[in-house]
Amino acid sequence: MAQQHLDPTDSTAGVATGDALAGYLRAQATEFLRALRAHRETGGGTANGAEGSVDAARLLRRSARRISGSLHTFRSLLDPDWSEEMRPELAWLSGTLGLEHAYEARLERLLLALHRLSGAAVLPAQAVDVAVAAGSRAAGAAPAPARAAAGGPGGPAGATAAPERGTLTVGAAKAGALLERQLTLARTRAHSSALQALGSSRFHAVADKVALLASEVPLTPTAPATGLRPLAAAAEERLTDAATALPLVTAGHPYNAEALVHGLSPDPAPHPQDGPWHQVRLLLRLHRYAREVLHGGNNPVDVRLLAAGQALNRHRDASEAAAAAAQAARTPRITPATAYALGVLHADQRHEVEAARFAFQQAWQKQTVTAP
Amino acid sequence: MAQQHLDPTDSTAGVATGDALAGYLRAQATEFLRALRAHRETGGGTANGAEGSVDAARLLRRSARRISGSLHTFRSLLDPDWSEEMRPELAWLSGTLGLEHAYEARLERLLLALHRLSGAAVLPAQAVDVAVAAGSRAAGAAPAPARAAAGGPGGPAGATAAPERGTLTVGAAKAGALLERQLTLARTRAHSSALQALGSSRFHAVADKVALLASEVPLTPTAPATGLRPLAAAAEERLTDAATALPLVTAGHPYNAEALVHGLSPDPAPHPQDGPWHQVRLLLRLHRYAREVLHGGNNPVDVRLLAAGQALNRHRDASEAAAAAAQAARTPRITPATAYALGVLHADQRHEVEAARFAFQQAWQKQTVTAP
Repeated sequence: MAQQHLDPTDSTAGVATGDALAGYLRAQATEFLRALRAHRETGGGTANGAEGSVDAARLLRRSARRISGSLHTFRSLLDPDWSEEMRPELAWLSGTLGLEHAYEARLERLLLALHRLSGAAVLPAQAVDVAVAAGSRAAGAAPAPARAAAGGPGGPAGATAAPERGTLTVGAAKAGALLERQLTLARTRAHSSALQALGSSRFHAVADKVALLASEVPLTPTAPATGLRPLAAAAEERLTDAATALPLVTAGHPYNAEALVHGLSPDPAPHPQDGPWHQVRLLLRLHRYAREVLHGGNNPVDVRLLAAGQALNRHRDASEAAAAAAQAARTPRITPATAYALGVLHADQRHEVEAARFAFQQAWQKQTVTAP
Repeated sequence: MAQQHLDPTDSTAGVATGDALAGYLRAQATEFLRALRAHRETGGGTANGAEGSVDAARLLRRSARRISGSLHTFRSLLDPDWSEEMRPELAWLSGTLGLEHAYEARLERLLLALHRLSGAAVLPAQAVDVAVAAGSRAAGAAPAPARAAAGGPGGPAGATAAPERGTLTVGAAKAGALLERQLTLARTRAHSSALQALGSSRFHAVADKVALLASEVPLTPTAPATGLRPLAAAAEERLTDAATALPLVTAGHPYNAEALVHGLSPDPAPHPQDGPWHQVRLLLRLHRYAREVLHGGNNPVDVRLLAAGQALNRHRDASEAAAAAAQAARTPRITPATAYALGVLHADQRHEVEAARFAFQQAWQKQTVTAP
């Protein structure tokens, strides 16, 4: 399978050496600095520039993840001390900057699901608008543009009746309000943490290192002439091995009811069965970045990888949304109707988890189709 | 499709006339009387003979449904006054006798699901034994032998750890106890109603008519020589038409999330989307009985029909179990933890509904494979 991705007839990939890696890292460092400049220009999260700031944070994370991933995959070609110092700092940064968006997306996903489960046939964007308009507790940061629910099954096609707050039962409405309160609070905190992080000396140290990287990549002496393919192939092999170890036979049987097996388990920890799937998601990302390094600007779109990655993102989102619903149900003094709605919601999201695994299995088993 | 079932080369089916119908009805009437005798011999539901009595009631229903179905499909060959008087009485009887078993099976299904959702990997029979032993409130009628869950997806294959009551969370345990209380009460009432029905003059009138039917079938004058195939084909056509009108394209897409669309709907009525599927289930049964009439003892097994019928039974069972969980959640003064567990359970059973639709779609689209 590895040979299908790393096409031996592709001269770009075939000859890529440490020089290509250096070029990639310099480009990503430049992107990082550009995003940082944009972030500072949009006001760094004040009311006026919040939206631009969210975009800038997203771009900062995008470059940070790519630099960090490349440092990992191609670490033998890079100065080890520098590499080992750099990676945890980039991981800290990307984690801190990602939380705000994650909470926001989670709330959107849960509110959309509540509307869907209430038989209110709504288009994703509408549902979010309504939910935000009807119940938003102003929280400093303005909401980013409504994001379409990532791959989740919607209502019946063509059903576009305008949603109304009144379509929610009392339980669903209360569950929605509770989730909104909890996740908006979490988002606000994440926003503050992100701002604090971007103003910290720790961040300035990272930014300085990235600025250096934009001009000079600390390759080992032999790296410039060393081929990248064996290291990229190893990254792909780690992905393939981890994916093969997943319970794909079960996942390929629709309605296997595996994802909800611990739906009422006394164990309050997140579903341990999700772990290996999250891990494959990270390995898939590393493989994707390695391909970018190898192919540079000519990186062909691999629809199979794309579909597999989207399925794993959906898996992660649904898993975390299900956990948030379960967590909300532990809030003291909620009504039974609220708890019931949260139970339905939790199970619904766990089935989304199962659906995402099925989608991954379908994508993964397909032969690779590489676009020209 | 109709031609595949009514094989034109099958001489038995080809020549079946009103005489064959009369033979079938006499045989079913005889079965009915035999079951009635068995029911009286086992004591009609006293503690000692409860199990035999449940079996006898099942056999009574079995014949009553077949007689009633044949009266419907082949009504033009039978004395209309007699037919019109007979059918509602048979429907009343079979409905009354079926309730006890339905409540019992529903409780089993829900308790099994609660155990599965609690991560307690159990074999169906074990789970029921444990649930019954741990929480049964003695209710007059002894429980029938544990029935394996009808086609529901179980835990991971090979997981056979012994179940313990302790594996249920407080919410799941309370939900189980609540369902057990409510459904056991309903079952006890259904049991009394069935006993009362079997002792009523209304029942004696039906039994007398069936006794007459065992010796003399009121065919119309021309019926004995009339071919049955056009009427049987019409029954099959009604089935085919109704099945074709089902949303099978949606059902064939796994994880379409349709079944739970009204999971939190303010409408307390059972899901209206289930109706057409229940209707197809009844039409499938009528078609099956018509085939029995045509083929007599040589009725070939049609695995496609068998699988489709099982899927629709599972659909009905899951639909009613989901409604029971939702109903239980409306009990006043339950704890939020109980309500949460019932919400998860409701959603789980609605996904079983969706899974059953998928299974039906898969079975229905298959080419007929008729065993020799």
